Amino acid sequence: MTHTQPIGFIDSGVGGLTVVKEAIKQLPNESILYLGDTARCPYGPRPAEQVIDYTWQMTRFLLEKNIKMLVIACNTATAVALDEIKAALSIPVIGVILPGSRAAVKATSNHRIGVIGTAGTIKSHSYERALKAKSPQTTVISLACPKFVPIVESNQYHSSVAKKIVSETLRPLKNKKLDTVILGCTHYPLLKHMIQNELGSTIRLIDSGAETVGEVSTLLDYFDIAQQSDQDVIPTHEFYTTGSPKIFDEIANDWLDLPNISSNHIDLGGK
Amino acid sequence: MTHTQPIGFIDSGVGGLTVVKEAIKQLPNESILYLGDTARCPYGPRPAEQVIDYTWQMTRFLLEKNIKMLVIACNTATAVALDEIKAALSIPVIGVILPGSRAAVKATSNHRIGVIGTAGTIKSHSYERALKAKSPQTTVISLACPKFVPIVESNQYHSSVAKKIVSETLRPLKNKKLDTVILGCTHYPLLKHMIQNELGSTIRLIDSGAETVGEVSTLLDYFDIAQQSDQDVIPTHEFYTTGSPKIFDEIANDWLDLPNISSNHIDLGGK
Repeated sequence: MTHTQPIGFIDSGVGGLTVVKEAIKQLPNESILYLGDTARCPYGPRPAEQVIDYTWQMTRFLLEKNIKMLVIACNTATAVALDEIKAALSIPVIGVILPGSRAAVKATSNHRIGVIGTAGTIKSHSYERALKAKSPQTTVISLACPKFVPIVESNQYHSSVAKKIVSETLRPLKNKKLDTVILGCTHYPLLKHMIQNELGSTIRLIDSGAETVGEVSTLLDYFDIAQQSDQDVIPTHEFYTTGSPKIFDEIANDWLDLPNISSNHIDLGGK
Repeated sequence: MTHTQPIGFIDSGVGGLTVVKEAIKQLPNESILYLGDTARCPYGPRPAEQVIDYTWQMTRFLLEKNIKMLVIACNTATAVALDEIKAALSIPVIGVILPGSRAAVKATSNHRIGVIGTAGTIKSHSYERALKAKSPQTTVISLACPKFVPIVESNQYHSSVAKKIVSETLRPLKNKKLDTVILGCTHYPLLKHMIQNELGSTIRLIDSGAETVGEVSTLLDYFDIAQQSDQDVIPTHEFYTTGSPKIFDEIANDWLDLPNISSNHIDLGGK
């Protein structure tokens, strides 16, 4: 493994770009390879076995491109596939659930934490288990928000329709005396302002993806595979999608502060 | 390795207690074993070979007590012995220099970072290398503060003598347009108020030890060796010193919020 190899990021679609945005900011020396399985998004409603299968397909694609670390930048995939993939690979593999849980336990004062995510993530109880293991007195209130990912993937996350859906979906979390809510899906930071507006400015929102980059940074150092700035390598950012590069690029250009993102379409063995 | 084993912390004296304080706060489920080599403190002026030798002696003592992770909670020892000990052990080994450097690079706005530490740490250029590798445009101004550790170890860190020494020692850092200063010695947080007063309230002080606990937490999760709160184990905290338990306990009781710390005296094969 050399320091100059890229870090791989995978997601069901464009959500993992919120993690990449943080990575570019916190780790400007690192090259990045991103793959979004846009064609089969959302993963949230799919059976666990299928999500595991798809996640492996994405992982294999990036392994062939010689990544030095894999970030499963998708909560649904992390919930069901992280342990298996981490155990099987020789490179470090990082998910988004534990970093978000650690940050939430640190942030809460009243030990009442909300978790919003896809149906798959919420059904897995992964956040609940992680939060309770760290802090047994925590009350966790979870809510599946199945409409959020499609809003983002269709590039409607600035729309008034989005605002209405966010408002209606989050109603069950109101008056629950939460002081912290985990954005347990990497698509959700694109709706962060609407979510914050709806839940109120005093609620601390935890961006599980952004927290994950802190872990990426720690592990790059721990395994001594960080790209050193004196190595004189210009970092590259490559994007792949199984769906339409056009919509992917529109969202990526809107969200990331990079010049002219142009993603590549690939196929991942059908289904 | 089981989740219930303790985490080991070593330091030249009482400085590592500042790391333990954070660990108790952030990781309340974990059992802790601490060893301070008070009899041979300070390490700062000693030759690197001797510090490596002493650090190995402390490491062996804790390994026999079956720790699951080793934290070298001493910057001087981290600078010269971390790589060798980490490569030799099968448990995770963590130092305090990289976490402090990561936090400083994240905190600075004007890319002018000060580092204060022992003569050994400053001479090793470890912080300078780590900071430059992460952010080449950073200007690093380093200052050895050889009088700080003896003030702390002699339990005079609240005294007016301490205030005078801090003031005189830090003079060369004034008017250097620094916005961030790394407390590159785990003893220094005990002098933090005086240091902050002297450098001014706008300077961001980075507590390398406190930052290290974030890395401990990340790696406990990554290697799946965190003590789970549902395992019904009451965490224990044991303290060992090669010096006088009396002074050690006075400082520990003043600094840590634990009832009646009573450390054990041990010998580490002379010198």
